[in-house]
Amino acid sequence: MIRVAVIGGTGYTALEVMRLLQRHPQAEITVVTSRSETGTVASVHPSLTGQVEVSFTNSSIDELSELADVAFCCLPHVASMESIPGLLAAGLKVVDLSADYRLTDPGVYEKWYGHVHTDPTRLGSTVYGLPELYRDQIKGQNLVANPGCYTSTSILALAPFLKAEVIDSQKIIIDAKSGVSGAGRTPKLGTLFAECNESLSAYSVGTHRHTPEIEQVLSDVSSQKVEVLFTPHLIPMDRGIFATVYADLKTPLTDESAIEILQEFYQDQPFVRVVSHLPKTKDVMYTNFCDITARVVQGRLMILAVLDNMIKGASGVAIQNFNLICDFEETMGLL
Amino acid sequence: MIRVAVIGGTGYTALEVMRLLQRHPQAEITVVTSRSETGTVASVHPSLTGQVEVSFTNSSIDELSELADVAFCCLPHVASMESIPGLLAAGLKVVDLSADYRLTDPGVYEKWYGHVHTDPTRLGSTVYGLPELYRDQIKGQNLVANPGCYTSTSILALAPFLKAEVIDSQKIIIDAKSGVSGAGRTPKLGTLFAECNESLSAYSVGTHRHTPEIEQVLSDVSSQKVEVLFTPHLIPMDRGIFATVYADLKTPLTDESAIEILQEFYQDQPFVRVVSHLPKTKDVMYTNFCDITARVVQGRLMILAVLDNMIKGASGVAIQNFNLICDFEETMGLL
Amino acid sequence: MIRVAVIGGTGYTALEVMRLLQRHPQAEITVVTSRSETGTVASVHPSLTGQVEVSFTNSSIDELSELADVAFCCLPHVASMESIPGLLAAGLKVVDLSADYRLTDPGVYEKWYGHVHTDPTRLGSTVYGLPELYRDQIKGQNLVANPGCYTSTSILALAPFLKAEVIDSQKIIIDAKSGVSGAGRTPKLGTLFAECNESLSAYSVGTHRHTPEIEQVLSDVSSQKVEVLFTPHLIPMDRGIFATVYADLKTPLTDESAIEILQEFYQDQPFVRVVSHLPKTKDVMYTNFCDITARVVQGRLMILAVLDNMIKGASGVAIQNFNLICDFEETMGLL
Amino acid sequence: MIRVAVIGGTGYTALEVMRLLQRHPQAEITVVTSRSETGTVASVHPSLTGQVEVSFTNSSIDELSELADVAFCCLPHVASMESIPGLLAAGLKVVDLSADYRLTDPGVYEKWYGHVHTDPTRLGSTVYGLPELYRDQIKGQNLVANPGCYTSTSILALAPFLKAEVIDSQKIIIDAKSGVSGAGRTPKLGTLFAECNESLSAYSVGTHRHTPEIEQVLSDVSSQKVEVLFTPHLIPMDRGIFATVYADLKTPLTDESAIEILQEFYQDQPFVRVVSHLPKTKDVMYTNFCDITARVVQGRLMILAVLDNMIKGASGVAIQNFNLICDFEETMGLL
Repeated sequence: MIRVAVIGGTGYTALEVMRLLQRHPQAEITVVTSRSETGTVASVHPSLTGQVEVSFTNSSIDELSELADVAFCCLPHVASMESIPGLLAAGLKVVDLSADYRLTDPGVYEKWYGHVHTDPTRLGSTVYGLPELYRDQIKGQNLVANPGCYTSTSILALAPFLKAEVIDSQKIIIDAKSGVSGAGRTPKLGTLFAECNESLSAYSVGTHRHTPEIEQVLSDVSSQKVEVLFTPHLIPMDRGIFATVYADLKTPLTDESAIEILQEFYQDQPFVRVVSHLPKTKDVMYTNFCDITARVVQGRLMILAVLDNMIKGASGVAIQNFNLICDFEETMGLL
Repeated sequence: MIRVAVIGGTGYTALEVMRLLQRHPQAEITVVTSRSETGTVASVHPSLTGQVEVSFTNSSIDELSELADVAFCCLPHVASMESIPGLLAAGLKVVDLSADYRLTDPGVYEKWYGHVHTDPTRLGSTVYGLPELYRDQIKGQNLVANPGCYTSTSILALAPFLKAEVIDSQKIIIDAKSGVSGAGRTPKLGTLFAECNESLSAYSVGTHRHTPEIEQVLSDVSSQKVEVLFTPHLIPMDRGIFATVYADLKTPLTDESAIEILQEFYQDQPFVRVVSHLPKTKDVMYTNFCDITARVVQGRLMILAVLDNMIKGASGVAIQNFNLICDFEETMGLL
Repeated sequence: MIRVAVIGGTGYTALEVMRLLQRHPQAEITVVTSRSETGTVASVHPSLTGQVEVSFTNSSIDELSELADVAFCCLPHVASMESIPGLLAAGLKVVDLSADYRLTDPGVYEKWYGHVHTDPTRLGSTVYGLPELYRDQIKGQNLVANPGCYTSTSILALAPFLKAEVIDSQKIIIDAKSGVSGAGRTPKLGTLFAECNESLSAYSVGTHRHTPEIEQVLSDVSSQKVEVLFTPHLIPMDRGIFATVYADLKTPLTDESAIEILQEFYQDQPFVRVVSHLPKTKDVMYTNFCDITARVVQGRLMILAVLDNMIKGASGVAIQNFNLICDFEETMGLL
Repeated sequence: MIRVAVIGGTGYTALEVMRLLQRHPQAEITVVTSRSETGTVASVHPSLTGQVEVSFTNSSIDELSELADVAFCCLPHVASMESIPGLLAAGLKVVDLSADYRLTDPGVYEKWYGHVHTDPTRLGSTVYGLPELYRDQIKGQNLVANPGCYTSTSILALAPFLKAEVIDSQKIIIDAKSGVSGAGRTPKLGTLFAECNESLSAYSVGTHRHTPEIEQVLSDVSSQKVEVLFTPHLIPMDRGIFATVYADLKTPLTDESAIEILQEFYQDQPFVRVVSHLPKTKDVMYTNFCDITARVVQGRLMILAVLDNMIKGASGVAIQNFNLICDFEETMGLL
């Protein structure tokens, strides 16, 4: 049984990590930290009543290293890179759900996040935790950078076609739509029910931080410079990301041949389902699946991909990474 | 043309007052105050772009008295009773949308709101702004206490039966359900989209501040001591209040005779629609109507009433009161 | 491994039964019947893509008895009682999710459902599948009548207090609220998104079919005649039932002593969580838990209970019953 | 006072036409037809209780011509072109809310709608009822083809840039999102609450009937062949269309110069608000406004446009057209 620490346990990704872990046969949550809360975990997350019976603590690194083998770091960016070097030094393995170790270039990090990276030497060497692309590198790692939610959706949609070199890598449009849970648990005007409900808006047009992450991973995977125009929209629903991707074809494809490229690429992946129908976010709600299809319209390629931003987009893929670094079956606790 | 000041213009009731006023043929918004905002009203409320062209100001009472004839006071309680005496002294007429002048007893106010009332002499003498019950007293007043949203729904449901003395005034249950806009525009965890959406909860069980207001008005109107067990619930929708009222009958009624009591009581009221079907909140959404019906089940009376909490429950009835104190047609700007 | 047949596989309860079963370590779905569909199960329920790999069939009883050991009967009422005698005769064990075997009196069935019961001899002898009350009787049965969603919520809320004889069994009000999934998958005007969304209504006031079911079980459990005034409301959310119960106290209670009665009653129940906070339907969403608390307000008892109508209110409790009749751990596949 | 007939009064566009007309100072609803309903209009549309007091009739053309001056035809396509020649012959002026008279080429109509057009001679000569582009032609007409909801949003977004010849007319992507009310009031599985809520999907990918309408009007207005890749998505909200438009620039623009092009084009239009912030559908909910802004991202133009599909997208623009053909102020009844 692996003893697990959840670092920063008050947010939604932490809640979802705990919900999934209490169902995992080889994991035991031994410590949940918070700098603001001191009561039981259930007092903040009543859905975990009777499920996760520990209380929040503000444990030191030493205490954490005695109580746990693996840490899920659910802190916001910056706070994450301040904590992780100590956790690693104390011998813990870490799955980091923040953005702090996803980018490889400290300059790019500073430009998009507005902070100097304080642990820059780990940037180039930390594995990007998308098992569908980096499974072998993840196994046995001590630190995994769990991907962003929009990022995973976009990358899983595009990687097969970029690798197959059938689309123009410079003219890609990703029109993405997300439920509101992705915006987190901190009260803000923009995520009030009365603001979001019965409304739809685009945000961070041309400036969203998942843009360089998408471009970096897709460029790495396809060995060419990839540029994307990425536009996120806020949708009045809890969970779910929908990516509508438009790309210019370099090689003519049909609906069938486009779907075949997806099927070949994902034939051995337990959590990517290539479908021929048009997927809905509800099809993957509360699951770790990503459903993808493709269409060719007016000579252009469209890829439609959906996942649950809290699970396959965050805490579920974190469990996949946990399973890989612990040498468990990758699907353990997730089906 | 009446010149109108909106005091405290950033919240949802102020937004709705302005939306209704810009359609009112005899009102002109000349000043909108805020202690926090200084830009255009549309910069905070983009739906008013091109409709309300003034900017927020932090005007003094003297300036207000020069710029406006009537003030809609949309401040929170306590702030309201600190501002209103000055507005009245400067010659403005005031419709107060807060709770500060609704109760008649300063002791009851202090008990439920936790503040000593600083303008107690006006409590007993301020008219309660529910035109269906107090129309004649409202006309010509300088200050009107606009009713609460749950309160109006509950009172309009019960007043006809209490006045007719057909129900027990001591055993009334009001199971009320409200959309989230009633909770206001200040960011709080409990009103985040990701908390409220796809969820339903009761709150303030046995302690909601609209309880003494309901009891006071119903006691006054029916000349007997009325007690209610009032339970509010938060519903994942923007607007609408639904009150399911249960009362013990003193006189046997049928569905038909119960509905007749309602019809007689409301026959000349432009904004109460007595219906025989079961009403839905959507039937009155974005209107100033309150739809009511009644049923007799297992010898008990059930009354079902709906209104839009932002309009008939707040800003719409405020326009009714504005029309009455300005001697306009009561329905002006509201149909 | 138990081989399972799902009878009537196109509706939402069938979908949920299959979703839960594919995660159950001792169950294998071998056949899914439908009279209208012939394609793969995933063609109707895309969320089951890659999870449930069988196609719909219109199998005869003989075929079913060869392919399966246990049947989950997800047919509508009437259709259910037409199929179940044959399934039982062929040696299958049956969990019936319809209302056909819940009531004990054929006359009551006929009155509320408008059909003569065609299998009346089984009515008196079929066990009511609420394990919290009838666990011992369920074990080893061949037929279990799975309870209704409103019914389970109401019964779990009231049984402890009726058994403790602290409340008046004649003056109970159940004001219940349900998400829309409870209304099923057949297209009707009243359950269109554009009708339900942003709306709230009461329905079947005084006439809902769960009324006699609640009264029968509570009367049986508490050995007294119980009468309830039951009012259902439709809430703009997918899942969740919230019951706000009002009862007259025969013995004075406090919040604490009321909660203690619940705690004692449910201390060994894995799926009922007695809580001291006010529960939300979201706390139990996608779980098999029922969360309950109590309050004493103005000398009356209020009980607040929540569950997920699709799981603890239908398909999850069906799995509990399946586990009990197969002699598995009751919680298997449900935590 | 103009006497108005509503032809086909049971659907949502008819409801919205009636809601708007009862507030219009120069219109009086004298007849509402239906082939299926015979009761009061309020029995089908309870929100109109006390507002629209007529009953549904199945009036002949002769009766209609005696009772009304103008007809709003709210029939589905095909039914519309079967009725309209008779209405015109009887001397009624007609605003047609169906798609039947929008396209100019009977062959294109047949291809996209699957029916031979039975009134082809009117196709080329009927004016397209988008007042922002065709105001002068609409005035005095007897028949106006009211535009589609996606169409209006897309055309209003693109027309200024195509006319200014700053974008490539062949490489336009319109990623559009709509609330569910656009799908109408006929019960279908796909528009059930339990299917749409908490879900997001694309539909009619590459095949939506608004595509040729958008291309036709934009080609006409800009005197060049325009091609668009149009993708509609269904969003879990009642009302609102959001169009995210991507186009390749032929002339370099900045955010500011792009917005200026919009401002110049729409400077005298009462119902198009060019804004510099990112618009939300809620900003225009229950209004006849279309809010538009533009951005230049990575050298491409993005245009973001929102409107209420039931009002500016259907029944509100129908009132604009009504005002124009009756020679009233265009904004009458709409502000």
